[in-house]
Amino acid sequence: MNPRTILRQLFDAAIAAADPALCVPPHLPPDDGGRLIVIGAGKASAAMAKAVETHWQGPLAGLVVTRYGHGVPCERIEIVEAAHPVPDAAGEAAALRILQTVRGLNERDRVLALISGGGSALMAAPAEGVTLAEKRALTSALLRSGASIGEINCVRKHLSASKGGRLAVAVWPAPVLTLAISDVPGDDPAVIASGPTVADPTTCADALRVLDFYGIDVPRALRQRLESGVLETPKPGDSRLARSDYQLVASPRQMLEAAAVEARRLGITPLILGDAIEGEAREVGKAMAGMARACAAHGFPAGRPCVLLSGGETTVTLKGHGRGGRNTEFLLGLALALDGAAGIHVLAADTDGIDGSENNAGALVAPDTLVRARALGIDSRAHLAGNDAWGYFSALGDLLVTGPTLTNVNDFRAVLVS
Amino acid sequence: MNPRTILRQLFDAAIAAADPALCVPPHLPPDDGGRLIVIGAGKASAAMAKAVETHWQGPLAGLVVTRYGHGVPCERIEIVEAAHPVPDAAGEAAALRILQTVRGLNERDRVLALISGGGSALMAAPAEGVTLAEKRALTSALLRSGASIGEINCVRKHLSASKGGRLAVAVWPAPVLTLAISDVPGDDPAVIASGPTVADPTTCADALRVLDFYGIDVPRALRQRLESGVLETPKPGDSRLARSDYQLVASPRQMLEAAAVEARRLGITPLILGDAIEGEAREVGKAMAGMARACAAHGFPAGRPCVLLSGGETTVTLKGHGRGGRNTEFLLGLALALDGAAGIHVLAADTDGIDGSENNAGALVAPDTLVRARALGIDSRAHLAGNDAWGYFSALGDLLVTGPTLTNVNDFRAVLVS
Repeated sequence: MNPRTILRQLFDAAIAAADPALCVPPHLPPDDGGRLIVIGAGKASAAMAKAVETHWQGPLAGLVVTRYGHGVPCERIEIVEAAHPVPDAAGEAAALRILQTVRGLNERDRVLALISGGGSALMAAPAEGVTLAEKRALTSALLRSGASIGEINCVRKHLSASKGGRLAVAVWPAPVLTLAISDVPGDDPAVIASGPTVADPTTCADALRVLDFYGIDVPRALRQRLESGVLETPKPGDSRLARSDYQLVASPRQMLEAAAVEARRLGITPLILGDAIEGEAREVGKAMAGMARACAAHGFPAGRPCVLLSGGETTVTLKGHGRGGRNTEFLLGLALALDGAAGIHVLAADTDGIDGSENNAGALVAPDTLVRARALGIDSRAHLAGNDAWGYFSALGDLLVTGPTLTNVNDFRAVLVS
Repeated sequence: MNPRTILRQLFDAAIAAADPALCVPPHLPPDDGGRLIVIGAGKASAAMAKAVETHWQGPLAGLVVTRYGHGVPCERIEIVEAAHPVPDAAGEAAALRILQTVRGLNERDRVLALISGGGSALMAAPAEGVTLAEKRALTSALLRSGASIGEINCVRKHLSASKGGRLAVAVWPAPVLTLAISDVPGDDPAVIASGPTVADPTTCADALRVLDFYGIDVPRALRQRLESGVLETPKPGDSRLARSDYQLVASPRQMLEAAAVEARRLGITPLILGDAIEGEAREVGKAMAGMARACAAHGFPAGRPCVLLSGGETTVTLKGHGRGGRNTEFLLGLALALDGAAGIHVLAADTDGIDGSENNAGALVAPDTLVRARALGIDSRAHLAGNDAWGYFSALGDLLVTGPTLTNVNDFRAVLVS
């Protein structure tokens, strides 16, 4: 079978494992004909809502916010689109309406929260007593400060009306079941979309420590609110979370394991390197090129035919002004390191269908990639130096274009050694 | 068993597999009491000569050049020390004396060439009609130009008196057996120490193309010598190489496989990721941290207890002014990405015993590395930003100091997941 066809089949199997239409229904509560209030936020959440509509016979109501272009027409659940990764007014309005929807419910009401990656930016409203301007100013200052994503999220949670378990508090005393699709390393419920329905292990004091450590100016009134604890998020053991249940319905791990099953079916040995591989995209590409070469030459870490599967999220440090996401950048770094090595084909793509902010999910590399580029007068190293991996694979006709897949379990990489 | 003890045992097993005293003797020619002329160059070559002396009963003569500090007292073979990685006059003199030693031999003489990594810089003399100043000027210009190491070596070979098979041509018509210890990805005989005794697949025309592509000024007389082909290296099929035999006696692969055997003996599952892993050291560290976390959380790419073994050579892009080699930099990047993850211990070291230009072979990382650093007031991120991984592990008392091991099969990394 054509290596490109094999890689595409592995990718399709991975996406199918995270498809809300397939992974949501098995986790729905028993359908007793009662009313279900459905709320949610994330790139996959509209498709999750659609899956609920398809399988739930009883009355449905509610509101779900997703990214522009990731909406799915629903009849009983309202779908709203908003901006990602930088929040906009539509996302703020959606957050406030979702909170309104669940306030005042009672113990006999039932709420279903459909949470997926991107939900944090899509459902962004400030906590009571915090202005949107303050929240934005502190977040931008943190982003420039060198603070880690964990530190930034700690501060964000304490300034938000819905993150860090506050959405579940709003739902209380009604019970809520959260169905989540993970796009984060470790699948931590408190991290996926900043954990709107689960306890927050961080405190106001932690948030203040972060702000002070990075020398960020905190308005006096806001500092007082953080010090007094009125902005505290619910902690593990908080009784208002006692009726909050949580179920992970799709994850990078499950997506990779589905691709591994498909590989085995095709007679190819799968080796899953990890579901949360991080690092500078082009350098991770180089390292994986070394592993692929070892498979080809020595039969380790796996014997041919084999495929090295991995997930997670690499990073790109911009130096040039080209176009491209982390998956194409990974692939171009890898192609240069492979230098045309025989029998090695690679696919890398964002499972949400959008690599960075381009029109493609990812791209493909073949042994003749560099040679074909040269024949077209394209300088492979110059394209990498200029962060123009999109332009590179576009010129070669090797972009993988799927459109939004309506799910999001982070990146998928498959290195096939024939 | 203590994880540090386990890691040290794996490292010791790896080094033993590449120890000239053990890996050279099985490959010596039958000892018929005749005379053997021994020449050689490289970081392991003095220890290789010692192994020959220990096992060869007949007359021995010759000259071997190694790095300062890597000498071993020999009685019948002369050992000379010179500078690495930047050549010095001692290395040039040694190269000329080695060529003198083998010129004028006849078919009944027998030559043994002991080649190992570093031999290229240690046995550096210009070809006839090329001045040392010209060779140095072109090499420095190439190093600044962005040319790849393969392109630089193509030019170097054509300007050298001994590289690219020229040493074997000098030995002709006497037969020569090369015993080689590899420190290069792929173990290509033409690449190890720039292949002094094997055919060179590159040509004078290739060398000129590289020089012209990078816009490097070539003195007129030298250009003529390259164009006329008088500087051509012997090509595959050259009859003057017909009596040149070649045997790889130790390689990164064998070293890793020995560590894998030792791991199995200790009840730990080994997974060799590759014998030629490349990429920016700290980013490769991050990627491997992701693999180790996956082993701990999910049982892939290997189930606990396991050890991820790898070889090859990462690179360090200097931004700060600290001290450290690529192995300590890899470890610090990895430690930050692991962020204290339980049960993961790591050793990384250069198998020659010298990581970069410091006094250590490498260092060790444990789950409490970052916490101990914080307790000492050491900012882990700042040390990485300043390329001061040596200072970091030195302050923690976690450097691995072995002194020169007298072999060189590139780097050894072991990520132990208990």
